[in-house]
Amino acid sequence: MTNIAFIGLGIMGAPMSVHLQRGGFAVTGYDLSPHAADRLVEAGGRAAGSLAEAVAEADVVAIMVPDSPDVEAVLSGPQGVLALVRPGTLIIDFSSIRPDVTQALAAQVQAAGCRLLDAPVSGGQPGAEQAILSIMVGGRPDDFEAARPIFDLVGRTIVLVGPNGAGQTVKAANQLIVAANIEALAEALVFLEAYGVDLAAAVEVLGGGLAGSAVLNQKAAKMTSRDFQPGFRIDLHHKDMGIVQAAARQAGLALPLGSLVAQLVAAVKAQGDGQLDHSALFRGVQRLCGLPTAD
Amino acid sequence: MTNIAFIGLGIMGAPMSVHLQRGGFAVTGYDLSPHAADRLVEAGGRAAGSLAEAVAEADVVAIMVPDSPDVEAVLSGPQGVLALVRPGTLIIDFSSIRPDVTQALAAQVQAAGCRLLDAPVSGGQPGAEQAILSIMVGGRPDDFEAARPIFDLVGRTIVLVGPNGAGQTVKAANQLIVAANIEALAEALVFLEAYGVDLAAAVEVLGGGLAGSAVLNQKAAKMTSRDFQPGFRIDLHHKDMGIVQAAARQAGLALPLGSLVAQLVAAVKAQGDGQLDHSALFRGVQRLCGLPTAD
Repeated sequence: MTNIAFIGLGIMGAPMSVHLQRGGFAVTGYDLSPHAADRLVEAGGRAAGSLAEAVAEADVVAIMVPDSPDVEAVLSGPQGVLALVRPGTLIIDFSSIRPDVTQALAAQVQAAGCRLLDAPVSGGQPGAEQAILSIMVGGRPDDFEAARPIFDLVGRTIVLVGPNGAGQTVKAANQLIVAANIEALAEALVFLEAYGVDLAAAVEVLGGGLAGSAVLNQKAAKMTSRDFQPGFRIDLHHKDMGIVQAAARQAGLALPLGSLVAQLVAAVKAQGDGQLDHSALFRGVQRLCGLPTAD
Repeated sequence: MTNIAFIGLGIMGAPMSVHLQRGGFAVTGYDLSPHAADRLVEAGGRAAGSLAEAVAEADVVAIMVPDSPDVEAVLSGPQGVLALVRPGTLIIDFSSIRPDVTQALAAQVQAAGCRLLDAPVSGGQPGAEQAILSIMVGGRPDDFEAARPIFDLVGRTIVLVGPNGAGQTVKAANQLIVAANIEALAEALVFLEAYGVDLAAAVEVLGGGLAGSAVLNQKAAKMTSRDFQPGFRIDLHHKDMGIVQAAARQAGLALPLGSLVAQLVAAVKAQGDGQLDHSALFRGVQRLCGLPTAD
């Protein structure tokens, strides 16, 4: 049986690890937070007390942590995964990080005789819970095929988009689109509320035309009901918009909408809403318009 | 049999009139352009040589023209529809115009003893051709029910959102969302092209997650193949963004993304692309980034 070490059991990692365990893999989970592994253990998996214990018998190491330095900390250094695992180990990084960091890590992974796929996901908590994530994969085709059975247990739309880093580049584009679509929806709903339009009716008819989107389906009700529980936190989307901005600058591009949205996400974080779902961009629009938020 | 006069047989009006004729109504079409009625006539409808001839026996007058002054010209004045039709005539305005103009026209329509529904649509040319438009209706519930058989022949998502003007307000919100989603997609695709990512693979995986949208489904291929045939013209979306901006200002709102997108649409129009599909926002991003367009 294939042993998977799953590092990072948060909102996304926890349900993903459970799907892999239930799907027939032997999953050992590790997270800095002690109770993060509870769901995995209930599903028959194991909880490790340390990174070293987690990866001791791993054939595959899956990683789902917040940011570029977190992935670097997991993989690199004398206590890192690359110093602990057997050559040939397949490392699947589901985290959303900087494409250039992924490329640098890929070189380290190769030097250690291991294999890396960057495999950031989209679909949020519902996508992780329902195992219908969209997975944008960068790496070698043979490694992609080897990881297929794992991807199939957590995702629905699974595409190899290029070499290492390409998955992260597509994820950056994804986050630009998602943030812009959320902000546009937030402004539209504030506008409709100001005019006293029946919001449920409006959302229904908007969803049926060219304004329809996954964002509208998942976020409109959160905005109209003022339920901003994450979901996907503003803090993390702020981090992702930083990745988009840096990568755009590196490529010599000017992306006006992306830049404005990055600023609007930064504003909502600055206003203290970093722990809320990214649909809280709605609260930023309310504040900008001098409207009361639902605190 | 119910007689429908259909005024305005352009990209949207022509297929809509054909669906109504085929659905069992007796449709008489009128358009300033002489050959605009050809498809309707082929489908068994009639072409009128004047507005007066078109509405002479009409029980229902349907209007699908570009802008607020066009609707005013059709309805008002000594040569207008309201001077020509019987009291009780139901007027369905499918055009996208200013909500305050709709409200002013509603008062005129009522004074003439007629009934008005504002019924702007979303879904574009494919939606009109396939009779799957989203229709956002403002007016009285009994008039809405009376118009149901007509709406059902051209639309799929058909919702009464409030009194006269509310349909136009929702359409304004729709156009804000659509323009923002198109611009975000355009910036994302320029970004991915700059990084040499496999665009077909990227679009597939983006469409499966939270970045998925009707805009992505309908417009990504137009951008990647540089096919900017309308569809829905930049000129008309520019007009609609003016409606959004004016209505937001009237309500005392600040909508930063909506304002930026309005400017970016204005730029693409200023650059000479007004006759292209609104997916030509992609060309605006290319120009902004100093990249060659496909002229």
